[in-house]
Amino acid sequence: MERLKALASEAETVSSAASVLGWDQETNLPPDGGPWRAKQLSWLSGRHHEMVTSEAWKSAIEEALANCDEEDSRASRNLTEMRRQFERKQRLPTELVERASSLSSRAKQVWSDARKHDDFLRFAPLLEELVGIAREKAELWGYADEPYDALLETYERGATTAKVASIFEGMGSELREISQAAVDRFAANPVELPAGPYPEEAQARFNREVAEALGFDFSMGRIDTTTHPFCTTLGPADVRLTTRYDLDDFTSSLFGVMHEAGHGLYEQGLRAEDYGTPAGDAVSLGIHESQSRLWENHIGRSRAFWDRWFPVACKHFPQLEAFGLDAFMGFVQRSEKSFIRVEADEATYDLHILLRFDLERRLVQGDLQVKDVPAAWNERFEAGFGITPPNDREGCLQDIHWAMGGLGYFPTYSLGNLNAAQLFEAARAVPDIATGIDRSDYAPLLAWLREKVHCHGGTLDPDEIIRDATGNEPSPEAHLRHLRKRYVG
Amino acid sequence: MERLKALASEAETVSSAASVLGWDQETNLPPDGGPWRAKQLSWLSGRHHEMVTSEAWKSAIEEALANCDEEDSRASRNLTEMRRQFERKQRLPTELVERASSLSSRAKQVWSDARKHDDFLRFAPLLEELVGIAREKAELWGYADEPYDALLETYERGATTAKVASIFEGMGSELREISQAAVDRFAANPVELPAGPYPEEAQARFNREVAEALGFDFSMGRIDTTTHPFCTTLGPADVRLTTRYDLDDFTSSLFGVMHEAGHGLYEQGLRAEDYGTPAGDAVSLGIHESQSRLWENHIGRSRAFWDRWFPVACKHFPQLEAFGLDAFMGFVQRSEKSFIRVEADEATYDLHILLRFDLERRLVQGDLQVKDVPAAWNERFEAGFGITPPNDREGCLQDIHWAMGGLGYFPTYSLGNLNAAQLFEAARAVPDIATGIDRSDYAPLLAWLREKVHCHGGTLDPDEIIRDATGNEPSPEAHLRHLRKRYVG
Repeated sequence: MERLKALASEAETVSSAASVLGWDQETNLPPDGGPWRAKQLSWLSGRHHEMVTSEAWKSAIEEALANCDEEDSRASRNLTEMRRQFERKQRLPTELVERASSLSSRAKQVWSDARKHDDFLRFAPLLEELVGIAREKAELWGYADEPYDALLETYERGATTAKVASIFEGMGSELREISQAAVDRFAANPVELPAGPYPEEAQARFNREVAEALGFDFSMGRIDTTTHPFCTTLGPADVRLTTRYDLDDFTSSLFGVMHEAGHGLYEQGLRAEDYGTPAGDAVSLGIHESQSRLWENHIGRSRAFWDRWFPVACKHFPQLEAFGLDAFMGFVQRSEKSFIRVEADEATYDLHILLRFDLERRLVQGDLQVKDVPAAWNERFEAGFGITPPNDREGCLQDIHWAMGGLGYFPTYSLGNLNAAQLFEAARAVPDIATGIDRSDYAPLLAWLREKVHCHGGTLDPDEIIRDATGNEPSPEAHLRHLRKRYVG
Repeated sequence: MERLKALASEAETVSSAASVLGWDQETNLPPDGGPWRAKQLSWLSGRHHEMVTSEAWKSAIEEALANCDEEDSRASRNLTEMRRQFERKQRLPTELVERASSLSSRAKQVWSDARKHDDFLRFAPLLEELVGIAREKAELWGYADEPYDALLETYERGATTAKVASIFEGMGSELREISQAAVDRFAANPVELPAGPYPEEAQARFNREVAEALGFDFSMGRIDTTTHPFCTTLGPADVRLTTRYDLDDFTSSLFGVMHEAGHGLYEQGLRAEDYGTPAGDAVSLGIHESQSRLWENHIGRSRAFWDRWFPVACKHFPQLEAFGLDAFMGFVQRSEKSFIRVEADEATYDLHILLRFDLERRLVQGDLQVKDVPAAWNERFEAGFGITPPNDREGCLQDIHWAMGGLGYFPTYSLGNLNAAQLFEAARAVPDIATGIDRSDYAPLLAWLREKVHCHGGTLDPDEIIRDATGNEPSPEAHLRHLRKRYVG
């Protein structure tokens, strides 16, 4: 195990160095710095892939497994998960990994231009290649029912296309009903935030205060500015959140920071001594997203939260004073139909995901041709929302995920929403936690999440985590209850 | 040559990735992120050292040299310099490189504590080790007269201790005379900058305007905030300047940015197609510092510069209006005795360097014991400045260089001052350049520096660059003339 730990630590050294370069690329890189940065990242990812698919790595895993105390389930689950990841990675030749990385660099560039010029045809040949590589990977990884299974598994261990489809289909019609009711309710009582500007410096100060109150530890983390907000971990004590500022709406960066802080709290809750192995790593995107959504939506958009924080917000932004808490809550819990996923509110968000899941599954399956994507997108959007995107920029070109090669990624956003609601309901059933939340003391809730979710890292499957934490199978019930209560009830 | 270029490019990929991590460490790293960052950097430096001391590297150089067109002096000088660097690096076992890197990580930590607590004894055992490693390296590298030669060579190719000592000794008494006169002159007419605050945002805007006017290209660079300002290159189109802000004195960050922009203009003037080889790399610290000092002092502290920029400064900082340009120039060209090198003005700066050169030379030679450093420092300071540091924090503990393992580094600061003056005098003798400078149009000056200094990279020795550009041997004359004219005349 010592040998394996040393190897894993070295591999993590390399991949976390790549994360530093990736973070810098999104937050700081000068305009002309891209090509060299791509070269640096490709070198690092090549070395990392070599390490984690090497014979030395394999034999160290086998040796550790042979000597593992079977009673120690954390240790043995950690090792079996390492072996699973090794076998998966080893199936991809380095040539394919490098080809995929280079394609994705090119594709992101072309996608960005295509989106700017609202020109899907410019992106289409790249998307063709991206789907091709995704299929190639799926064939190498293997799958039970359809190639999309293998892609989904990359982001959500243990999930299958059939199961996700059944969950999504099961909640589809209720979701549409709730979102329509929510939109109607807000349309009947529309409310606008008082005019800005909400100065960036004041937003940054307020965001930091809130992130600290949630429990985010700034001695091992920070918040920076970027175009596309994200959270990334650059070392066992270095978790970076990013946000962007809208001078007309401070809640945009605030909820963004609460969302990313949710991711960051998960990362800071992983055990440092297991860093570099699955036990010290997040288990899946669907669990990761459950943490961000829980803090952003269940805490951040609740009345109890604003009972405590609205007076603080008024100090930072004096124009809120006259607006009042009731009107402000109407704004925070507003629901409107929109074409853009990242701007969507809680009540309509999942409809955006259902659409993407459906299309990308058919793309990978070969049931949908790349050239037909814009029409299929618009048709599906009309069916879900009753409105049609005016152009591809606000339609099928809006997201970076396909260009990144991330087919199979989207469904984890909605799985995260379901998990968040289910976890939050279970946590709130604990009296101390409920009392804490009502008083805006989040320490008991965070301690519960640390114990039930964070500390396990990848030693439990996502479904096991939900089951153990909530006593129930993963299901959309809690999420639908939550939306109904907040947006319809 | 193609094979060598590929190897060099890969090696530069690795070392520039380390530079990204180093930059981030100084500008962004959360407090607890240090240990993991040290691990990442040590891994990268190990891989880099392996690459540039490998047999493949050696044979690629030999092969390229064998096939090199001797008429092409740029190409052949590039290759002989590569071979020289290879031979130097190969003399150090990887074990020693790693030991030195780990010692320097520890030493920086201890030095920082020792300085904070004004406790030289805490740092002394580390300094003992640092001097020991420096001697070890010097023995492996070899030297003509004394071990300090080998250390100096690391930073200033072609320089010898005897030559530097002779230059410094030759200018010592005149320097002391000038600095005393400058200090007396300012004491007779002291002037203070109008009270702050000079807001950070306004400073940052003004600094950027000035850096752009000098010619710094922000499409391949940026400016960030740090505690100890520096300039670093993270790729062929990614040059980062850093600064810090003093709310009571905007000129501190402004001259800092002009200084770092001087370094940055040199880096941006290197040929991108040679990036990763000596032809695309700065030749020495003494030439690097000539560029920073030229822009900071010869341009930035001149009356012609402020004729143009004082009105702009008044727009950013209205309190300057009533102060007036004449009084402001008195402030910009003030001279005062101070204990701290980085706060020293032009007229007293070199005295700080002469002291350090003298002490570190004797340390390496074994003529000065570590335990005697504080007393020797104070005695030498008294002799140079006529005042004695009140404590070691403001004395021998003030600089990070020894803790970094940088024995031999200090003299390049003064060599930079001499080179700056000599280059500037030669440039100003060109009528178009002089006219440009007087009108605050720096394009002709920058074009001259690009042609005479930047584009050569490491294909000429520092002395050759000065000789070719100015028609004279390197000497302190221009520097002394400049100081006398500005501070005494």
